[in-house]
Amino acid sequence: MHPPLRIGIAGLGTVGAATLQLLRTQGELLRERTGRNLAITAVAFRDAAKQRHVSLEGIRVMRDAAQMAQAEDVEVVLELIGGAHGIAHDLVRESLRAGKHVVTANKALIATHGAALAALAEAQGVTLAFEAAVAGGIPVLSALRTGLAANRVTRVAGILNGTCNYMLSTMEQSGQDFDTVLREAQSLGYAEADPAADVDGIDTAHKLAILASLAFGTAPDFAAVYCEGIRHITPLDIHYAARFGYRIKLLGIAALQRDALLQQVTPALVPLGSPLAAVNDVFNAIAMECDAAGNVVMEGRGAGGSATASAVLSDVVAIARGDRFAPFTTPASLLRAAPRASLAGVQGAFYLRLRMRDEPGVLSEITQRFAQHAISVRSITQPSAADAQQKGADILVITHITSGAALAQASAEIAALSRCLATPVALRILA
Amino acid sequence: MHPPLRIGIAGLGTVGAATLQLLRTQGELLRERTGRNLAITAVAFRDAAKQRHVSLEGIRVMRDAAQMAQAEDVEVVLELIGGAHGIAHDLVRESLRAGKHVVTANKALIATHGAALAALAEAQGVTLAFEAAVAGGIPVLSALRTGLAANRVTRVAGILNGTCNYMLSTMEQSGQDFDTVLREAQSLGYAEADPAADVDGIDTAHKLAILASLAFGTAPDFAAVYCEGIRHITPLDIHYAARFGYRIKLLGIAALQRDALLQQVTPALVPLGSPLAAVNDVFNAIAMECDAAGNVVMEGRGAGGSATASAVLSDVVAIARGDRFAPFTTPASLLRAAPRASLAGVQGAFYLRLRMRDEPGVLSEITQRFAQHAISVRSITQPSAADAQQKGADILVITHITSGAALAQASAEIAALSRCLATPVALRILA
Repeated sequence: MHPPLRIGIAGLGTVGAATLQLLRTQGELLRERTGRNLAITAVAFRDAAKQRHVSLEGIRVMRDAAQMAQAEDVEVVLELIGGAHGIAHDLVRESLRAGKHVVTANKALIATHGAALAALAEAQGVTLAFEAAVAGGIPVLSALRTGLAANRVTRVAGILNGTCNYMLSTMEQSGQDFDTVLREAQSLGYAEADPAADVDGIDTAHKLAILASLAFGTAPDFAAVYCEGIRHITPLDIHYAARFGYRIKLLGIAALQRDALLQQVTPALVPLGSPLAAVNDVFNAIAMECDAAGNVVMEGRGAGGSATASAVLSDVVAIARGDRFAPFTTPASLLRAAPRASLAGVQGAFYLRLRMRDEPGVLSEITQRFAQHAISVRSITQPSAADAQQKGADILVITHITSGAALAQASAEIAALSRCLATPVALRILA
Repeated sequence: MHPPLRIGIAGLGTVGAATLQLLRTQGELLRERTGRNLAITAVAFRDAAKQRHVSLEGIRVMRDAAQMAQAEDVEVVLELIGGAHGIAHDLVRESLRAGKHVVTANKALIATHGAALAALAEAQGVTLAFEAAVAGGIPVLSALRTGLAANRVTRVAGILNGTCNYMLSTMEQSGQDFDTVLREAQSLGYAEADPAADVDGIDTAHKLAILASLAFGTAPDFAAVYCEGIRHITPLDIHYAARFGYRIKLLGIAALQRDALLQQVTPALVPLGSPLAAVNDVFNAIAMECDAAGNVVMEGRGAGGSATASAVLSDVVAIARGDRFAPFTTPASLLRAAPRASLAGVQGAFYLRLRMRDEPGVLSEITQRFAQHAISVRSITQPSAADAQQKGADILVITHITSGAALAQASAEIAALSRCLATPVALRILA
């Protein structure tokens, strides 16, 4: 039997408290699976008054998380405070400098400062691990690190934000609009009072930047993510998509295009019957196209205290066993700085919804624009108005494979027509 | 840079040749991800005349695989010969005894001799790993070993045999019967000339025994698997299941019932819209119910040279990095010998198809039997005959949750009725 592994937990919010709890309830199991005791020696949290429903008996309590980086009785720091900068960043950096292993659930921190922190961890010969930063309880990072390590990944596409997936599922089932469903999600606690991080795609973008780095061996590059949320998606779009055999999901998509890296957060149409289409409510899923293993899909709970705690402890298990791995699988010194691929270069099929004046000649004006940009149209449909109050009529276009540039140009030209009544909605169709 | 890891490949069939090939094409990637060269120093194969489309230049060729266990220039033996006994077993045992790490794709061997081989590996301080033995390219064993290690798994249900899944998918799409689809699968190379291992569920049972051991910390117990194949499934059953909102899949199901272990291979009805229902053709999937992470599902290619090679090399990557883990995650000395749970104790809903003489009074005779065994019936349907040639009429029963014992008794009593024309087909409905 090895000596106990001494663990400090910084942050006792939902995830911190769940992690502490899970470490206790699974104590015997974790001992069997790692060959040693996992002992919590210290916790740090700010708000002493907050009720936590966890006993801290026998654990040293610190008021200042920064202390933990210097604590002699802590070998592994669990950073569960959150935030890309400030205290969380300081604690992780100083803990690594002090030769401690660090496990964090902090996607913003890793997406932003991951490369520098990984280099520091590797220089110090310690582990920095962040399974919990991406897709909660789904062990996708360890799958990329080990289970799929013999593959070149060609594309990653994931449903990475449970709030958005819940909202899109609910909009589909109830026919309610974005604002109504958002208020409902807020009252259920599925969405924050300020929902921007979720519904504008920023949370998905953080996770995508981390996933892309492990998948492609590129340095995490959050700033290069094209980011589009779901505020402009209407129940009508969802209804139309279903009519054509698709479901709308907010996806994080990353792919290598020659040497350039495309990272895109966007609502996209996925075919009904595909694994991603079947992911409902708050669930997450990641589809990875691998050159040897083929398409591998993982699905599960993307958030919540116990699912996230499961991911945090999976990293602790690896550390307790003595596994040694580079934080992004590829050593920090070998991570490539891939140039940002342009959206214009994306080759794909598209869904386009145009709100036009209901007049003769409109269709021909539209199809002309497509012809001019050599866009091959799979179908063009003018459904009877679902909403009698609406001005004008919707025209729905599904294209064959075309370039993002051609689509953007045609779309801009149509938007400039006097008969066009609203900004066109253009969405990728994921094959 | 560590010294190269010296690898011997025993067996150059589909998987062996694909593994050799993949080690070469991903050489640089694997070096980046492990920090060392992975060098093939020796291969062993029997049939020298067989065309392999792989160059063996610079590799020592052995005619007798047994030699590899003693080869001084081999640190890791990849056993890709197959078979539960004989040469494969001898090679694995002797290689471990000689202090070599062993990676194998051999499900029959691990399901049968896994506990003893694991104990030997642990005593020798070497690694025995077999990701490729279960579900091909889906890294489910490493997920259980690390990514989900902080969870108690309460149930595993998997589509683990691509041949059967392909056949059931094809029967559904074409309406053809088992024999026709089997011949087609054989001509496409999806099914063997002797299809018993696939269609009678034995292959699924091997994989299930391994999965159950990792999931529950029990010793692998292949002999305790209840095993039922798909020969008795008709297009009619598939059609009827769809009518009730289900799809029929051959599943391996394992669950702990108090301290007893249920391991069952059976065609079962899964709800349309559930992740397992969406798994078509030769794909595999595993749904794991975890106490902390919730339900986690992994899907991908369950067979084929390159998918299996991906799994073999994932184990090689772990060994090259120096990861140390017990073959079944729980150390061999701590694996529990769980008693076999009886099928009678299964609590679940069931689908029952009864072929009865088409006479008045039949329904009342049947419902009496259900009432006597306190089985609550959700629906009882007498569809109009899909096949005008058939004798009698089908009666379909869907039950609420009941015990396997009650269902078996009622079913046996109905089978004994003079009006019953064929053995009833009873299938579990997986919630």
